[in-house]
Amino acid sequence: MDRGKENCSTFGDAVRRARAKTGLTQEELADRSGIDRSYIGGVERGERNPTLVVICKIADGLGLTLSELFSYDNARGSRD
Amino acid sequence: MDRGKENCSTFGDAVRRARAKTGLTQEELADRSGIDRSYIGGVERGERNPTLVVICKIADGLGLTLSELFSYDNARGSRD
Repeated sequence: MDRGKENCSTFGDAVRRARAKTGLTQEELADRSGIDRSYIGGVERGERNPTLVVICKIADGLGLTLSELFSYDNARGSRD
Repeated sequence: MDRGKENCSTFGDAVRRARAKTGLTQEELADRSGIDRSYIGGVERGERNPTLVVICKIADGLGLTLSELFSYDNARGSRD
């Protein structure tokens, strides 16, 4: 898997873990972040390469800072 | 300033602060991250909305995890 794809799937795992911790469904996160539910699903599957603005919307929807959201990122060293 | 623009300029400040801390010039960061120097300048000025893959390249170029890089982010609660 190329480095870029790997980063996207790692980020997707972080969003899924953080969302699970908050108890939100993908639908609820989509509503809170103003992003389409299917896009959230694509991000969690590592199929999307979101921009900074979208990443900030997801973090806001989770009620996390960006640093907190990325700390759910297993592969690059972080929180379980 | 709209929320998206604000996030980009906040991220730009974080990259500049992190780069200053590592003592790298924009040129050196551009070389290490495989990104064009003028693009790095645009990111630091908050004029760019980089994708996750580009953000990861910048973090790698700085030798930081994403969580560490975003912790240089003043506005959203962080490290000085």
